Amino acid sequence: MGDDGFMTASLLEQLIEALRVLPGVGQKSAQRMAYHLLERQREGGLRLAGALRQAMEHIRHCERCRDFSETERCAVCASMSRDATLLCVVETPADRLAIEQATGYRGLYFVLQGRLSPLDGIGPDELGLDQLARRLEEGEVRELIVATNPTVEGEATAHYLAQIARSRSVHPSRLAHGVPLGGELEYVDRGTLSHAFGSRLEIRE
Amino acid sequence: MGDDGFMTASLLEQLIEALRVLPGVGQKSAQRMAYHLLERQREGGLRLAGALRQAMEHIRHCERCRDFSETERCAVCASMSRDATLLCVVETPADRLAIEQATGYRGLYFVLQGRLSPLDGIGPDELGLDQLARRLEEGEVRELIVATNPTVEGEATAHYLAQIARSRSVHPSRLAHGVPLGGELEYVDRGTLSHAFGSRLEIRE
Repeated sequence: MGDDGFMTASLLEQLIEALRVLPGVGQKSAQRMAYHLLERQREGGLRLAGALRQAMEHIRHCERCRDFSETERCAVCASMSRDATLLCVVETPADRLAIEQATGYRGLYFVLQGRLSPLDGIGPDELGLDQLARRLEEGEVRELIVATNPTVEGEATAHYLAQIARSRSVHPSRLAHGVPLGGELEYVDRGTLSHAFGSRLEIRE
Repeated sequence: MGDDGFMTASLLEQLIEALRVLPGVGQKSAQRMAYHLLERQREGGLRLAGALRQAMEHIRHCERCRDFSETERCAVCASMSRDATLLCVVETPADRLAIEQATGYRGLYFVLQGRLSPLDGIGPDELGLDQLARRLEEGEVRELIVATNPTVEGEATAHYLAQIARSRSVHPSRLAHGVPLGGELEYVDRGTLSHAFGSRLEIRE
């Protein structure tokens, strides 16, 4: 910024700086966002300010599934119409939302808020696995659907989760891996293609 | 969203919806931003909420140059160390910021907050051109540097601005157009290349 002149723009500069907290937003995008709001969306900007404050101050974790919730227990966990014999374990709230939106799943969830990663100091305690184990011991859950990400750490977490389930006589299952629907074989990554080939299924009549 | 369960997430849903006011942010990006703030940046989220409210409520337009300002007159216009004989006209505050950051320009600015666009109902009144004309009549400005965008509407605006300047005995000038520095001819658009070729300059010793 200039030496004399641009000291005034401090509220604007503060806004641009504050916008950079958003993922994927650098200096240029932050400038564009700030100018857009000031020029055309002051009402929307104020609405966003209010929504941010409310969300940051009042959203906490569901005591039962660890997902984000405004209340002690989230609506899914509190619902009487979900199938409590099915428990789906995901890494993040975003994963849970994706499953909820894409599938007709009517069971319950458990959100790890991470994955086992010893190098980052993330072990079973950080993921609430003792809480999960206690829940399985309650005896209501029959199947633990492990929906961690198909990464090295996600697979290690899945392995650990399956052990917890088996030792509590709960049946563990995982999502099917393979060629994505609508994908072209040519563009599917090698690992996936190799796995899908090795796990090929018989075509039934 | 689900029928029973996801009604709780209303603060989260409100935040995701509110984030979509930002330019270039759709449903997926808004979700990612909301989860990022909730998981890792609650302090940053609150800071952003405060900065947004402050900026939306307190940033107005400088009475002299029409740029954004917290005060009646912005710091550039209020500064005693700028050259008041030079006045640079730009379309937007972002353009002004770009010039201020890239060049050593020490004159003053006038921000149109738009460009002539009769079809959108944007005429001389909306751009404050009467205010600009009165300022040129004050007699201090010697050169009007027209830095509108090289688009059809920007060029029309530039033409109009040059007329205003000449009729007040102010010398109008415009930014040089041509091949960008560091650009490769092969990738320069045709219009620019054609213009640069037609406006070629003699190489002086």
